[in-house]
Amino acid sequence: MASELELIERIRRRAFLPPSAGLVLGIGDDCAVFRPRGSAEDLLFTTDLLVEGTHYLRSTHTAEDVGWKTLARGLSDIAAMGGEPRFCLLSLALAPWQTEPWIDGFYRGLLRLSRREKTPLAGGDLGHGERAMCDIVVCGAVPRGKALLRSGARAGDVLYVSGTLGGSALGLASGHRRGGAARWKKHVRPEPRLALGRFLSESVRATAAMDLSDGLSIDLRRLCLASRLKAEIQAPPRYPGASLEQALHGGEDYELLFAAPERTRVPAEFAGVPLTRIGILRKGRPGAVALDGQPLPPLGYDHLRNS
Amino acid sequence: MASELELIERIRRRAFLPPSAGLVLGIGDDCAVFRPRGSAEDLLFTTDLLVEGTHYLRSTHTAEDVGWKTLARGLSDIAAMGGEPRFCLLSLALAPWQTEPWIDGFYRGLLRLSRREKTPLAGGDLGHGERAMCDIVVCGAVPRGKALLRSGARAGDVLYVSGTLGGSALGLASGHRRGGAARWKKHVRPEPRLALGRFLSESVRATAAMDLSDGLSIDLRRLCLASRLKAEIQAPPRYPGASLEQALHGGEDYELLFAAPERTRVPAEFAGVPLTRIGILRKGRPGAVALDGQPLPPLGYDHLRNS
Repeated sequence: MASELELIERIRRRAFLPPSAGLVLGIGDDCAVFRPRGSAEDLLFTTDLLVEGTHYLRSTHTAEDVGWKTLARGLSDIAAMGGEPRFCLLSLALAPWQTEPWIDGFYRGLLRLSRREKTPLAGGDLGHGERAMCDIVVCGAVPRGKALLRSGARAGDVLYVSGTLGGSALGLASGHRRGGAARWKKHVRPEPRLALGRFLSESVRATAAMDLSDGLSIDLRRLCLASRLKAEIQAPPRYPGASLEQALHGGEDYELLFAAPERTRVPAEFAGVPLTRIGILRKGRPGAVALDGQPLPPLGYDHLRNS
Repeated sequence: MASELELIERIRRRAFLPPSAGLVLGIGDDCAVFRPRGSAEDLLFTTDLLVEGTHYLRSTHTAEDVGWKTLARGLSDIAAMGGEPRFCLLSLALAPWQTEPWIDGFYRGLLRLSRREKTPLAGGDLGHGERAMCDIVVCGAVPRGKALLRSGARAGDVLYVSGTLGGSALGLASGHRRGGAARWKKHVRPEPRLALGRFLSESVRATAAMDLSDGLSIDLRRLCLASRLKAEIQAPPRYPGASLEQALHGGEDYELLFAAPERTRVPAEFAGVPLTRIGILRKGRPGAVALDGQPLPPLGYDHLRNS
């Protein structure tokens, strides 16, 4: 089986993009970008699958957790482009074990985040599957032409991450029963960095950004491929107790990775979330990432290979 | 388990719809309607799940058929609102049996229709499941305020259907090996009525419309519930060889059901597709449907009960 990156690239090459359809950006970034006729805003669209057994376990995740996480994943993609969410759509394939109380709990978790982030649930579809699965679509908006892309970085730009990394992987490894409520919450109730994303777009004028959903090592590789640059980094800031491995390769932290010119003054924190310089982008083999001078393999989560 | 209608109604009541978000129409019609700031157009959004074993069989449907049908279902919802498609997004959960040749065939079928209908594939997500599943999102556009809704019909309006009904159910029942290539094609390669939908909106000024995806009996009930009316119909036009049962309750014909005032001149056909008067809408118990004076039970496809 091809890797996810290879398959996406093959689909992207074959997908049809007529020049006049209002579609500014298609396959390959956190969101697609669509420019409605006459509008001062561009619209962002992202879809995220959440599959039982892959993205959550029935035995450890409550229905509310799953509902929250479903929407948080989509909102995180909107944050990564500097957008403000507008609405969401949800398709839900129900497994035989999913009773009405579970479904009610799922919607309770999802709608709590929906209300807080002013992202109304506008529609969707229902069906049945062997395993529970849902697909969230989130629409967001940015001022015309202002979406933060993966492909905008330039050689010499500095790389930053928000927050600390590895907390979600640590929470997953520790489980929710063996103490560590904070790290477990980090895993099951990720916080999309929406305000930070808008700050990066409007005030910092970051040149590129993406969210860290599959692990720094593989996500940074994707940013480097999109910008056709290589990266040289140091160890990223770790969540308390997380190993270097967890911080480099653990997924689902939903922090933001971004680039800004050397001269840009990036504050040390935004709304209590640290912003840490982790390295620099240079001309070189596109997609190559080095940690302290050694090649860093992309061991993060590939949705087709790790299954 | 609640029926699909009951569950959707429960979700709809709890979903959060702030008045100023640009969301004109939320849960409960063929598409959600979003009004971008400053745009002369409203955008339509629909999502449709396609599940192996429910919507298609691995043994009888080719990969190209599945790809075509996936997009055709979404386009049919855009047609039902009188819209012009703009782009689509696809989330694909792959089952272990889906090899690269199958995936290539799937995209070939989907992208053929995508090109024909100028609906570029703009993004999506990939994952794994036990059963193959995909979720298509289609975005379409209508002039501001012109979306054809299920809820717009008035007492006295006449009901029409396009084409003939029962062909897809007949094709499914006959199978593709026992001859009947035309009826099998009707089942696996449905034709979304996009040009007709725009004609109904722009020229006929239909008061309500929807597509027939789950069967006339259940879909007409949904239109009646949305418009708070009852319907009195006669037998609809049948696909050659289809039984009355297949025409009334068989799903997946993807024809359009619409209403127009009595005085409206509706042509007998549009671009070779017959438009047939099947009955009238009246004040009465919302959702009640009578065929030749007898109550018609909603035996069409309920995605939660028929599984």
